[in-house]
Amino acid sequence: MFESVKFEHHLDKADFKALEPSLREDLLNAQFQLIDQKRRSLLVLIHGPDGSGKGGVLNRLYGWLDVRKVQTLTFDMPCAEEDRPPMWKYWRELPPFGQIGVMLGSWYHAPLCRRALGEMGRADFISALQEIQRFEAMLHSEGVSLLKIWLYLDDEEARRRLKALTKGAWQRPVVREWAELGGAGARKRLYEASEEAARATSTEIAPWHVVPAADVDYRDAMAGSLLLETLRAIAAEPEPAPQPLPPNPTRVPGALPPFSILSTLDLSQSLTPAEYEAQLAREQNRITRLTNSPAFGRAGLVVAFEGSDAAGKSSTIMRLRRALDPQRFRVHPIAAPTDEERARPYLWRFWRHIPQHGRTVIFDRSWYGRVLVERVEGLCGPDDWGRAYGEINDFEDQVSQAGYVVVKFWLAISEAEQARRFEERESIAYKRFKLTPEDWRNRGKWPLYDAAVTEMVDRTSTRTAPWVLVEAEDKHFARVKVLRTIADRLEAALG
Amino acid sequence: MFESVKFEHHLDKADFKALEPSLREDLLNAQFQLIDQKRRSLLVLIHGPDGSGKGGVLNRLYGWLDVRKVQTLTFDMPCAEEDRPPMWKYWRELPPFGQIGVMLGSWYHAPLCRRALGEMGRADFISALQEIQRFEAMLHSEGVSLLKIWLYLDDEEARRRLKALTKGAWQRPVVREWAELGGAGARKRLYEASEEAARATSTEIAPWHVVPAADVDYRDAMAGSLLLETLRAIAAEPEPAPQPLPPNPTRVPGALPPFSILSTLDLSQSLTPAEYEAQLAREQNRITRLTNSPAFGRAGLVVAFEGSDAAGKSSTIMRLRRALDPQRFRVHPIAAPTDEERARPYLWRFWRHIPQHGRTVIFDRSWYGRVLVERVEGLCGPDDWGRAYGEINDFEDQVSQAGYVVVKFWLAISEAEQARRFEERESIAYKRFKLTPEDWRNRGKWPLYDAAVTEMVDRTSTRTAPWVLVEAEDKHFARVKVLRTIADRLEAALG
Repeated sequence: MFESVKFEHHLDKADFKALEPSLREDLLNAQFQLIDQKRRSLLVLIHGPDGSGKGGVLNRLYGWLDVRKVQTLTFDMPCAEEDRPPMWKYWRELPPFGQIGVMLGSWYHAPLCRRALGEMGRADFISALQEIQRFEAMLHSEGVSLLKIWLYLDDEEARRRLKALTKGAWQRPVVREWAELGGAGARKRLYEASEEAARATSTEIAPWHVVPAADVDYRDAMAGSLLLETLRAIAAEPEPAPQPLPPNPTRVPGALPPFSILSTLDLSQSLTPAEYEAQLAREQNRITRLTNSPAFGRAGLVVAFEGSDAAGKSSTIMRLRRALDPQRFRVHPIAAPTDEERARPYLWRFWRHIPQHGRTVIFDRSWYGRVLVERVEGLCGPDDWGRAYGEINDFEDQVSQAGYVVVKFWLAISEAEQARRFEERESIAYKRFKLTPEDWRNRGKWPLYDAAVTEMVDRTSTRTAPWVLVEAEDKHFARVKVLRTIADRLEAALG
Repeated sequence: MFESVKFEHHLDKADFKALEPSLREDLLNAQFQLIDQKRRSLLVLIHGPDGSGKGGVLNRLYGWLDVRKVQTLTFDMPCAEEDRPPMWKYWRELPPFGQIGVMLGSWYHAPLCRRALGEMGRADFISALQEIQRFEAMLHSEGVSLLKIWLYLDDEEARRRLKALTKGAWQRPVVREWAELGGAGARKRLYEASEEAARATSTEIAPWHVVPAADVDYRDAMAGSLLLETLRAIAAEPEPAPQPLPPNPTRVPGALPPFSILSTLDLSQSLTPAEYEAQLAREQNRITRLTNSPAFGRAGLVVAFEGSDAAGKSSTIMRLRRALDPQRFRVHPIAAPTDEERARPYLWRFWRHIPQHGRTVIFDRSWYGRVLVERVEGLCGPDDWGRAYGEINDFEDQVSQAGYVVVKFWLAISEAEQARRFEERESIAYKRFKLTPEDWRNRGKWPLYDAAVTEMVDRTSTRTAPWVLVEAEDKHFARVKVLRTIADRLEAALG
């Protein structure tokens, strides 16, 4: 991987000066296409040992581009602990479509650093690289292009430069890495891990480009050319075709009658008022106690509510709300995305609401919208909702791995019960707002939702985040089941 | 203030049940007007001693409203230290127009708590209340209405309830306040401070409503009625008239020829290339050293660049950029607001970028847009830009008080020099993007900008955040002056 760059690469000052104006003009024109099209954003990852000139490349690119549409994305030092899932900080910083983000430090940093320091075994390292590969594939599908540049410097030269650097005014950031990774053993392991990472994550959509960094002008001209190439490739992508309405939302057509997981539920289950009062209070107390325990301060709770219209999501959330400390939870009803949300990958608007440890977030409808309403209504194409299952599993897995308990509910009622509740809503003044003509229309799509729910549960019910189907024909039964599930899950997780 | 509520207030269960359905329906209808009009948001502040039922009122309101457009805004405990200016967290949480935010804990908490604990003298307390009054007036002018409810409980009853509370499962949040403010002396001081605060901040646009809290149904019915009244008052506000273009942007017409502060600058100042190289490097080194010092970790740097088109803002920022650790600074070019920004008070989009301590943020154009381009182009009315001076001073003062160094520059060139630079931009391919036909058109407004700048400097050059006018006819001179000013200000602040 790093073999061919070990030969000397050099560009004469005069040659560079001759080349620069047209490179600059071409880059600007290509950047304006990105800005005007607003279809994609571009992340430029610049990696390399300290002293290889990451900051230098950054400054040169800033001199060439329209900087008003470029952001530098930086993150704290690689090994620092955080109070949110590790991927949260990268999601938060994603620039909107039309813009370029230049990253110093990225999702490669933590695994490389931990591997070099011997804190991570090879199997875990490989698995981390695979996660990265899936993450980058998701970004690419969702409108974020990647240009990954690896600045190569041989070890002797890298050490020499680092020493020179630590003598200057730039003491703070360098010395810390120097202390951690400065030893010859760790540097060797970092080199090996880097080569392995570059190989494993050089995919078709996001290959690594190794750039010899010893000669400054060569390095920068190379980086500029790669950027130009990437921008031109983005501009040349064909305009996406308008989404056709899917003729049939089930993915695998067949002769067998479709299986409906919802039809297996026993909707007759119910509680008497006395049972309800007693059990509701008990589960609320359990949740209060568990979410106030010290162990919860290192965990967190993420709850997603889905279900048919009028299945009782809001009233269930209200009972859950009463068990929680208002200082430490939020409810997010999911409505139409804002323009800041529309200009980024789909999951961005959920990641932005993932709270600190020790807190709870409740989603009233959730990221499953893509495989439910967007699928059934044809708001996105089969490609989009088809790959959403895997992306959602990765998302929930990352949140779970960070210690959060992820609980998701489907509240199920029968068609007849829904009709009854709609009519009730029409007849009571202060409930009328909950019903729109669209709700009545959606009833015609019941079989489509049935199929979508079945596939959703099949494909996204995981060990860390299993689906809980809630028999909601009797509201009291449903509320207690939801609260008890949350309490049980918290108890199991907090030990 | 609290006298009349000491008598018994009571509502029979039956009366409450009779009243509730119509109150609920009225509330919903009024809320829908807020949602549909999207002109204003409403913050409901609920204050009162622990045990007075703040959470109870909150839950009842949630039972009555369309909760999808209501957010609970909570903040950490009153006396906790923070890593950003104290007002930042309130700004961050402002709901968009059309929504209701219910606040448990607010900007009243810290001064009340500090006053009750004897950490704050009376003069400082009064001055904190005045700041709050100005802040609330700004919110009101900028589309945020306020409903402030004070739940009253006599001391005997409050103590009894608090004791009962600490026995239950809700141990964590209560016990901390109890420990801090539970003593009879502190409670008495809290009561006195509360009364003083309620009196001092009961303004016409945001009066306090004291609600007797001993009887739960009375308390909630009262809170609901106040909310209904407030929502109806908002709905009844006349539609704002479309903004007329101001006939004359100077506020005080008179016989004297207008004074131009920019005309007093000596634009002939310049540096030789050798002076420039040496001085630029020196100032960059100073800034690097100062922003890497431990003292800077408890401070921060906020820089705003304004100036004529082509005065050299971008190229100056580039020289500043090179002196800063890329891990710890951001540049924000100010362009058209996003819809999330448009749905909130003007200063929100600047507050959201105020960084943690130890970091730098550079604004390429800034919050002064309101009194410059928006004023001159008639994008907002004289009322809006007229009150912006005071609001901006408060904003900068709050940031400065939190330890940040606030530096603001106007880069000045002559009309002739601007024409020369525009022509240069036209002739060089990679500079052409910096010039639009609008830039040429804007030259006709030179005298209007001249007057706007003069008034801006007069009214917003403060001791903590003075304006620095930069003679930018010679780019080298300008860059060194900017960097030296920043280094000097940092040196003075960090000691």
